[in-house]
Order: sequence, then C-alpha cells, then structure tokens
Amino acid sequence: MRTIKVLDSTLRDGAQGEGINFSLEDKLNIVTKLDKLGISYIEAGNPSSNPKDAEFFREVARMPLKHATLVAFGSTRHHSITAAQDKGCQSLLDAGTKAVCIFGKSWDMHVTQVLGTTLEENLDMISDTVRFFKDHGKEVIYDAEHFFDGCKANAEYALKTVQAAARAGADCVVLCDTNGACFPSEISKITARVIDAVDCAVGIHCHNDTGCAIANSMMAVEAGASHVQGTYIGFGERCGNANLSAIIANLQLKQGYECIPAEKMRRLTKTARYIAEIANLVLPNSLPYVGKSAFAHKGGMHVDGVTKNPHSFEHIDPEQVGNHRNLLLSEVSGRSAIAARMSELDSSITRNSIETAEFIEMLKERELEGYQFESADASLEIFALKYLGKYRPAFELEYFKILGEQPAVHVDRSASAMVKVKVDGQIEMTAAEGDGPVHALDVALRRALEVFYPSLHKVRLVDYKVRVIEGHAATAAMVRVIIVSTDDESTWTTVGVSADIIDASWQALRDSIEYKLLHDHAV
Amino acid sequence: MRTIKVLDSTLRDGAQGEGINFSLEDKLNIVTKLDKLGISYIEAGNPSSNPKDAEFFREVARMPLKHATLVAFGSTRHHSITAAQDKGCQSLLDAGTKAVCIFGKSWDMHVTQVLGTTLEENLDMISDTVRFFKDHGKEVIYDAEHFFDGCKANAEYALKTVQAAARAGADCVVLCDTNGACFPSEISKITARVIDAVDCAVGIHCHNDTGCAIANSMMAVEAGASHVQGTYIGFGERCGNANLSAIIANLQLKQGYECIPAEKMRRLTKTARYIAEIANLVLPNSLPYVGKSAFAHKGGMHVDGVTKNPHSFEHIDPEQVGNHRNLLLSEVSGRSAIAARMSELDSSITRNSIETAEFIEMLKERELEGYQFESADASLEIFALKYLGKYRPAFELEYFKILGEQPAVHVDRSASAMVKVKVDGQIEMTAAEGDGPVHALDVALRRALEVFYPSLHKVRLVDYKVRVIEGHAATAAMVRVIIVSTDDESTWTTVGVSADIIDASWQALRDSIEYKLLHDHAV
Repeated sequence: MRTIKVLDSTLRDGAQGEGINFSLEDKLNIVTKLDKLGISYIEAGNPSSNPKDAEFFREVARMPLKHATLVAFGSTRHHSITAAQDKGCQSLLDAGTKAVCIFGKSWDMHVTQVLGTTLEENLDMISDTVRFFKDHGKEVIYDAEHFFDGCKANAEYALKTVQAAARAGADCVVLCDTNGACFPSEISKITARVIDAVDCAVGIHCHNDTGCAIANSMMAVEAGASHVQGTYIGFGERCGNANLSAIIANLQLKQGYECIPAEKMRRLTKTARYIAEIANLVLPNSLPYVGKSAFAHKGGMHVDGVTKNPHSFEHIDPEQVGNHRNLLLSEVSGRSAIAARMSELDSSITRNSIETAEFIEMLKERELEGYQFESADASLEIFALKYLGKYRPAFELEYFKILGEQPAVHVDRSASAMVKVKVDGQIEMTAAEGDGPVHALDVALRRALEVFYPSLHKVRLVDYKVRVIEGHAATAAMVRVIIVSTDDESTWTTVGVSADIIDASWQALRDSIEYKLLHDHAV
Repeated sequence: MRTIKVLDSTLRDGAQGEGINFSLEDKLNIVTKLDKLGISYIEAGNPSSNPKDAEFFREVARMPLKHATLVAFGSTRHHSITAAQDKGCQSLLDAGTKAVCIFGKSWDMHVTQVLGTTLEENLDMISDTVRFFKDHGKEVIYDAEHFFDGCKANAEYALKTVQAAARAGADCVVLCDTNGACFPSEISKITARVIDAVDCAVGIHCHNDTGCAIANSMMAVEAGASHVQGTYIGFGERCGNANLSAIIANLQLKQGYECIPAEKMRRLTKTARYIAEIANLVLPNSLPYVGKSAFAHKGGMHVDGVTKNPHSFEHIDPEQVGNHRNLLLSEVSGRSAIAARMSELDSSITRNSIETAEFIEMLKERELEGYQFESADASLEIFALKYLGKYRPAFELEYFKILGEQPAVHVDRSASAMVKVKVDGQIEMTAAEGDGPVHALDVALRRALEVFYPSLHKVRLVDYKVRVIEGHAATAAMVRVIIVSTDDESTWTTVGVSADIIDASWQALRDSIEYKLLHDHAV
C-alpha cells in the first residue's frame, strides 16, 4: 500500500481565510486533534511574520505528539544577504521544530516584479536557504509558490527552481497552485514532468479558485505525488485550500492509499466539526464525507432506494468516516421517513395511514412559515404528539414580561424577566436577571418550574442559534431560533419561529422543557 | 468556438437539498433570472411527483423567455404498460414544455433490485419512452442515472441503455454520476467511450460527494461532452450538484468555450447572490468566482503583491464575473490596506505613521472581542474617527427601556420601547411598538431623532443578521449583529457585539444613524 504524507495548514494558510482568527489556545487544541487523527505534518505558523506564532512554538514544544511532525513556515532568504544573516530564517530556526517549510518563487514574473531581483539570484536564494536548514539538521519541505502558473509562463525556469531546492537537499518539493487557477489535466501533466526531473519526493498544494482543488490534488497523486498539502475543512484565503478531510477519505477509502492509520478514519467527521467550532465557522452541511447533509436523503425515490439498498444512493457507508445517514422530513420526501417516526409514537400508524398524509400536510405548512424540523427532532416529536392528541402540557404560562434597558442596572445584567406559570392549578411566580432578554427568561422560567419538576435542574442549554429567515423586512424580519439542550445523558434540539426573537426563543425553550419532562415520565 | 449547452436544475435537483423550499413565486423569479443570464435549459420540476410543479408549469407557460428552453423532468414508463398508459409520462406531456428530460436506469443492480424488472424490459422502457416524446414533437434529453457506477459494474449493459435512448431518437444522452462517487480520470475515459458509441450529443451530470463535481464536469467536456447539467450555486441532495456558476466561468473565461452570451458574464455574481437569497441560503463566502471572499486578500504579502500586480494573486479580473477585489483588514494583513483607509480620513497619515500601527493594535483587540470590520465599513469609519479624535456624536442617549411580554397586547406588536435622547442640550422622548424588541427600539429611536435630523426619515434597514459567536454559554453567549442600512442613494453596514442581543443591536443601530449624519454634514 502506498503511503501519502498529509500536511495540514489549517493554522497557517487556513488562518488567512476571511473571518478566521485563532487564539493561542485554539491553536494548541487544533494541534492535539490533528495529531490524534494521525496527520503526518502540522504546519502551524510563520514565526517571522507573526509574533503570536513565536509564542505558540514555545508552548507547543512542550506538548507530546504521537503522530505528527510540527512544521514552521517561512520564506527563502532575502537577496544580497546569507541565510544566516536573514532574520526570517533565524526566527524559523528559533521555532525549534523538527521540520521547516520554505517557500520560494518559481514564476519569473514574481521574481522580477514582486521580489525585485534577478532570476539567477532567486535560484541561489532557494538553494542557500534549503542548505542552511539541512545543515541545521532540519527536515526541509520546499513549497514552490505559483509553480503551475510559473510553468505555463516559463517552464524551463520553473523547473530550475525545484531542481535547485532538490539538489540543495530538500526532502520534498511541493508544487503550489497558489492562485488556484489550474485544471486537472494540466496538474497531471506538469506533476509527472517534475517527478521525472527531481530525485526527492514531490508534493502538491492546491487552492480552490476554479473549484478543482480536491480533484487537482487527486490527479497529482495519480501522477506520482506522495505528499499533499491543504487545510482540514478547506478554509483559506479567497476560495480556500484543498479540503484534506475529503482528500484523505478519497485516497484511503476509494483508492487504497494510506494517509492516516486505518483505525482513525472514523474520527474524520468529529475532527471536522471540532475544527469548525474552534474556527467559529458553520461547517457547510454539504461538505463531502463530514457534512451534516453528506448522507442526507430527501427525494422520495432516494429515501425509498436507500432503504432497500444503502449502496443505491450512497457511495460509501457513512460509519466509515464517523458520519451517519439522515432521512429528511420535507415536502418532497416520500412518506417512509415520516411514517417511521410516527409509528414510534403510535404503533398503529403505518406508511399508508390517513394520519401520515395529514401530518405531512401540516408539516409542509409549518415549513412554509419558516420552521425546520430536519434537525429539531424534539420539536417534531411534540408537534406530532399534539397532532395525535397525545400531548399534555406540563405547565401553562400565565405571562412573562421582559425588561431590557440602557444604561443597565448592572453590567452583564442588562435584562430582567418575570414569569408566572401554573402547574396543576398551582401558581408559581418568579423573576431573574440575565445577560440579555432570552437569558433572563430562560433562568426565570426554569427557576419557577423546578419547584414542580426538580429534574429540570440538570438541564442546560448547550447551543443557541439565531437565523434571520427573511432579509428584507430588516428588524421586523422573521427569525428562527434553534436551541440544543442536554441533561448530560441525552441531547435534544428544538425550534421556534417568529418576527419577535423573544417569542421565537420562548417557543424553543418551552419545547425543550416539555420534551425533557415527557421523557422523564416515559422512563 | 465550441458551444456548451448548460442545463440548470436548481429548481428540480437543487430543491432536493437540505433546507431548500421554493414557493411558486420563488420558482418564477429564478426562471426569470436564469433566462436573463442566458442559460440554455431550465429544468424546472417533476410534474408527476409534485402537484405544486404542475401548477408552476401552467404559470410559467405565460412567461416570455428570451434564451432558455424550459424542461420538465420525469422517469421512463413503468414496466408492463405503454408510455401512453403511464400517468407519469402523461403528466410530463401535460406540462407543455418544448423539451423533456427523461431519466432511466443504467446500473444493472438498480434495474433488478430497485425497479424490480428485467434488464431487457428496462431497455424497452427507455426506448419506448424516448420514442413516445419524440413522436409528440419534444426535444428529448435522456439522463442515464448512475451511469458511471453502472459502467463499473457492467459496462456492456450500461452502454446498451444509452444506445437504446440514442437510437430511439434522444437529442442528448447525459451521463450521471448520481452518487457523486467518481474521480476525474474515470469520468474522462468513460465519457470518451460513450462519445464513440452513440450518434447524438453527450452530456454530463455530476454530484459532489467526493468534492470533484466541478472538475469531473470539466473533464467530461475535455473528453467531448457538449451539455453540462448542474445547479447554479451547487446546492442539491447530500453534498450538492456540480456548481454551474464555476463551470461556466471555467469553460468560458479559461478554456474558450461559449456557455452563455459573452456580454452576460458580468451577471454571474449577482445571479448567484439572487438565487441564494431566494433559496434563503447564505452564499458561501469562498464560492469560486461569485463568493464574497473569492477575490479577498488578507495575508500581508498577498495584499502587497496584488497591489503591485493584480495578476500576481488573482487568476482572473474579478470584474469579468461582476465580482470585486476586497482587501481585508485584520491582524495578519499588511498595513497597506488600513493605511489607505485612514488616509481618507486624515491625509497626513501614511503606511508608516505611528497612528497606523496603533490603530491596527486596537482593531486586533476589537476583533478578539468578536467584532468583524471586514464587511462593516461604516462602523470601521466611526471607530477610526473616534481613534483620531475627530468624532462628534450627533446625539446622546439618556436611556431606553424595552418591554417584551406574552401574551402580547397586540398580535404583531409584542414589544414596546421608550427612548430619551439629547441633541444640543434639547431633550426628546418618545415611544413605539414593534414586532420584537429591536424593531420597537429602531422605530422609537428614529422617531425621536427625526425631530432634529429630518434626513433620517429616508433611512431604512435592509438587512439585519444575528450570529452567535460562542456556542457554549447558550443564551448567555456573545452575539454579533450586522445591520445594512440605505437611504436609497448609498448603502452602509454596521456591527455590534454583546452578550445581550438588544445591546448588540443598539450599537449597530447607533453607528448606522451616526454614519448617515456624518455623511450628510460632509456634503
């Protein structure tokens, strides 16, 4: 089995993405996760361009890593000085990593126009810098910036740049499609040509400006590259870097290469979600292999097909990458998925029951109003129970009143709420302050209800999401609130929709509490 | 120049995407925009599986289209009956479109296991159905479902299915990678083989489960396909369909094909944003060509490089697709971008001024708190003016108080706000009701300030976005509010961050009004 070395640059090239900002702690956490996944190299920063990165390298040196080699990133020396005199090279050395990644110019236009030096001097800058780090005992990865564009402009010179790096002792020369402008056939031909021209390993580094970064990386491997650079969930400057989570799955599950230890493959999905969370990005649902919708089926025929034979509409078993199948409820889905859920609540209901058809109609209306039950399972269950006449509310709201004001009475306590509820004819009224109106309402409501239902004490909200679902009416637009709750044993999701964010939050909070109490009684 | 026919299935295959729900009016609007862009075929629905689609086809028949041919989608006839007896074929005919797209099975496993019929009968189903529609004068596009997987399992049979369609008179046979499981080299070889085996045009239909849908479509065209199916911004079941906006740009700007009239290329970006808005999706920033970040530069060297020579880090001129370059402000950007903005406010400030460095430090701190100035230009300007000591507030807030309650006093008026402001020593106090707390505050604030500043009467909020920026603390998490305002002459964006959504909204509202008044005075 051929091994492919994977270099993850989430912390370096990924940090160039719009809206990405990592703290020191974020970076250490990501290193831990990538190491656990079995990634070969973690490119973690550019100590000469960012002082925060220098501090990071001091901290990370203390962490024991099992699989990964840490890589510090920097450029070839400046012209007219030696590598030893170059501040950038010095701070790269100071980072103390086992491996370094040096980038240099391959495109003649960049050498003369951006660097402002001669083509000959650039070759010296490359070989001097590589040799400097080899002499200091480093593993050296040489990133040939703009290699493909350079090759198209002046192939002979571009080849000389990687040959200079290889002859100076680079362990791997990496061909970069820096502007993301290339197509698969070009990548394939040019990579094969370099493999013939150098003696060291050859790698590939793609960007996604034509939407081909994953495919281009695959083509380079097919042509003989043995080292792939990218970012784990594909973020990076402009249209992003090659998405490693998809490349690893493609190469390892479908083409027989080994990128990470086989037993780690099931971590692919959770690693993606973890990194997205730390990067404060919503992981795109449609992301290959690891997205929430990657194995979601909505079309009626697809739901039916996949129920008969999963292979019919799934290219792999989702469990292989730690993801799972998801049969969506919606107007275009067949009845199978909805009937399956309803029969859990009432075993007499089947696919052909009148109840199934009626309930689907009601769901469609709610979806038009902006509700989304695809993820809000707990609200869906309560909605179905209401339809089946099996719902008994655990409490009645008499009223709530929320006051938000500025200047705030206390910092961090800018809102207050009073809540009056009734349970079995008995009234309980209470009030609470909070960090905003919904927080105050949440605290007051649970305080009042815990008098009757002590188990609510264990319930915590773990996520709260707001989505404006009509952009036009501005502050009077509809909002959808999704709340994720837990009692440490299970986790459930509820939804509310309203023009008023407080009302939408209230619906989701109420469903969350009702769901918890329903399942307490059921046990 | 070779022409490529593009079939957009946003309204059919796209509607299978998680969270996608089109109203009749949405569909008509999308048809209008795609026609204006010059798309060849618009596949608009499956009249036999969805009654709403039948109504749509009646409505759309009245619309005059300039470029596009409408296509109704349906399956081959059922087994053991004629196409004329088949309800699905009949409703497809009733849709009254000039062209139809028929899909049928190519993978032997699907024929026997999912359809439950014989391989021979499936071939008859294909040719009968194609002939039926040709006899009724239709242009017939034949979609060979699972063609590539079918070919890998039983190439001889898969080829027979498309030959059956071609011989029965299909105008185009389209090879579908239904499960999105294929890689570029396979697509290339198999497409070339089909082109040799049939006499009609050959098309390609890819899904993105391995992340290769765009590249696979490009490879099929390289192998001779002349018809490409996908969805305009790539949404669809699971990981989505091939993203046509990128494929059109790739083929037309970089490979010399004609997909749409050349003068329409500049509409690519606004069409993408329009469809995302109707579909109620956030257009991914990183989408090739049309995403907000597609030409955004953040890394210091990239910002410098692109300033010297745009070609150095941009693969095309963003104007060609109606997008634009965006130099981001952030901790890793060089000083160039920030200095350029500051010198607009104070012409004495340059890249090397102490002010530039200090202000960058302050920006970094704010970004750590959760602010994002990358898009909120108006808040950035106010922030810079404050730093430069050039900011004179147009009003002072004495206080506001907001009351939200349930049951609400009036439906749609669930919140009320009172606001007291001071301008040049003069007090104005007023109150308003609203559809939620922020709406009430917005109305009350502007009502009070219009007494002093009548020009505020023209200001409207056109977008209001809420983003929870720390998922863990649940309802006490930080939220970022982004507000887009307009006075019909210009549009500006402001930001606020707080644990309290009302406070965050207040910051963004206040900046919006201040910005408008600042620019009124400047004129």
